Amino acid sequence: MRILGIDPGSTATGYGVIEGQAAALVHVAHGTVRPPRGAALPDRLVAIQEGIAELIEAHRPDVAVLERVFVRADNPRSALVLGQARGVALVTLASAGLTPSELTPQEVKAAVVGTGNATKAQVQQMVKRLLGLEKAPGQDAADALAAAICRAAQGRLAGLPARGTRSRGSSRAGAWVVRRAR
Amino acid sequence: MRILGIDPGSTATGYGVIEGQAAALVHVAHGTVRPPRGAALPDRLVAIQEGIAELIEAHRPDVAVLERVFVRADNPRSALVLGQARGVALVTLASAGLTPSELTPQEVKAAVVGTGNATKAQVQQMVKRLLGLEKAPGQDAADALAAAICRAAQGRLAGLPARGTRSRGSSRAGAWVVRRAR
Repeated sequence: MRILGIDPGSTATGYGVIEGQAAALVHVAHGTVRPPRGAALPDRLVAIQEGIAELIEAHRPDVAVLERVFVRADNPRSALVLGQARGVALVTLASAGLTPSELTPQEVKAAVVGTGNATKAQVQQMVKRLLGLEKAPGQDAADALAAAICRAAQGRLAGLPARGTRSRGSSRAGAWVVRRAR
Repeated sequence: MRILGIDPGSTATGYGVIEGQAAALVHVAHGTVRPPRGAALPDRLVAIQEGIAELIEAHRPDVAVLERVFVRADNPRSALVLGQARGVALVTLASAGLTPSELTPQEVKAAVVGTGNATKAQVQQMVKRLLGLEKAPGQDAADALAAAICRAAQGRLAGLPARGTRSRGSSRAGAWVVRRAR
């Protein structure tokens, strides 16, 4: 199962593509889509749309995943700005037949680091380790890869009888399969 | 000049199409795009995208316009939700070559009603009157038509030498041309 994770943002949209196989995670690609600096909002949104469409074309994912957003009460303006980028990511994925699943940040952190309140740096380091990368990805790409890793763990556990049950194959892959995210 | 006004929202996206001609405004169409109730967010956003794309196809506007949004400090969650619908509207318009201009609510109200703090009901009534409609449009469509009317006034005044100058043709069209919105 090839999984595309997206971490939408108006200035940088992180992405990560992995394959969740029977016993291991395989890194395919990661990076960021960056609209031209100083471009007008509609043009930046078009750049995000085109960037995600190109990723789908290039990597042919089977499923897509985004983090659910919890907006901070003190910044409604940034919630609007994030919402605009997020709406574009959602509609681009859904138009391509990849209706994305949404995971809470806690689910993602728990799946990747083992604790729901991990720091960004911990997520970056665990993503690097789980995927055998030479260096840690940037924050946006690491968040996108982390969401994809969490989604892989879900897919892997989907056949198990009881929630929270350990995956039979968990010993090889480390922390990423021990929690069942919903 | 045929103008498409859009008032994006996650449950109802108002639209209005008018033609701003030398001496008069001509109503072409208005209504709302309503995603299926209870549909998942990505599917609702796709319905908004498809609805706006169909409007562009059907009415072939020359320009598009949206109201700028001022988010309320007390509701960041609704800012996120609105942002998602708004991002989809912006990207759909821009992808079709209709990079929308954005007008403040004050500009739109001033152009249509004559005062920047007009009520929604006043906007609906003035839109009805200016376009010679049999009944007042619903709020979402009225806001979209009002934005289009304001944009028509701007286009009409664009050739005038000084800001705030009265249009030579303003006597026939009433309040909608006396203010130059920026």
